[in-house]
Amino acid sequence: MTTDVIQENSPLLAHPFVKQVVTQLRSTDSYGTYDTWTDCRVLDPLILTKERRREIPVIGDPDDITISRVKAFYNAISCRIEAECGLMAVPMINLTHEGFGRAIITVGKLIVMDKILRDVHRFGFDSLDKLIEEVDKLTAKALTIIADHRAVAEL
Amino acid sequence: MTTDVIQENSPLLAHPFVKQVVTQLRSTDSYGTYDTWTDCRVLDPLILTKERRREIPVIGDPDDITISRVKAFYNAISCRIEAECGLMAVPMINLTHEGFGRAIITVGKLIVMDKILRDVHRFGFDSLDKLIEEVDKLTAKALTIIADHRAVAEL
Repeated sequence: MTTDVIQENSPLLAHPFVKQVVTQLRSTDSYGTYDTWTDCRVLDPLILTKERRREIPVIGDPDDITISRVKAFYNAISCRIEAECGLMAVPMINLTHEGFGRAIITVGKLIVMDKILRDVHRFGFDSLDKLIEEVDKLTAKALTIIADHRAVAEL
Repeated sequence: MTTDVIQENSPLLAHPFVKQVVTQLRSTDSYGTYDTWTDCRVLDPLILTKERRREIPVIGDPDDITISRVKAFYNAISCRIEAECGLMAVPMINLTHEGFGRAIITVGKLIVMDKILRDVHRFGFDSLDKLIEEVDKLTAKALTIIADHRAVAEL
């Protein structure tokens, strides 16, 4: 099923990171709701165009499914960092109920990623390209820090 | 007021760390309930003797006031580390609603304390001495890591 923001035949759906995000999102689906869904449909809520973003009010607390998407995204980044550096990467996400917080990824005693989260209600990316771009940036930065301070990452 | 676990005239109540914990605990008291309480009484729930511990069931989720005590304790440790090393120390606590989780303190990109939390329902110390002992141990360890990897702590 092609959604209005992701084409079913998009080559990006085969990107290893995108596949990892899909795996992570599917793993949170305890009731099997996603079983009959295509990857496109599972990923769809992560893609927030300007129009979509505008429709989501930042009122009240972000719901559990939104928060689980944030976690799926940072879990997937951890997996990627882990695969590239060969050391265990652990994500830790702290959110106040209003949707503000901090996401970090640690390797050994080293913080390799540190992001302030705001308006988690609207967590998403303009397009699949933007999502991959962001991930590449975060991963590259993390790997540089690990290379610079390998001893701490191995603690 | 002397409680059954802390003596009003205990010299430990003047210990800088104990005073800091009291400050942190009082800061969570938005309704002024503690205003008329002595430090003894404010600290009292943090001291869990074997008998007291046995009386607290690990059933259901730990309540907010218990969690705020955990936070007060690690905030106070952060303050102490900050004072001793001259760099900002940030605590981050992640708890599942069942009372399991992880507490870390970061300085720059360095994790200077990392503790697994279990049965937060029963968070406390055998005595005020034990509390100070634990804090001294954690602080000493944190300062060693900072000394060993000052460059990362300054990132």
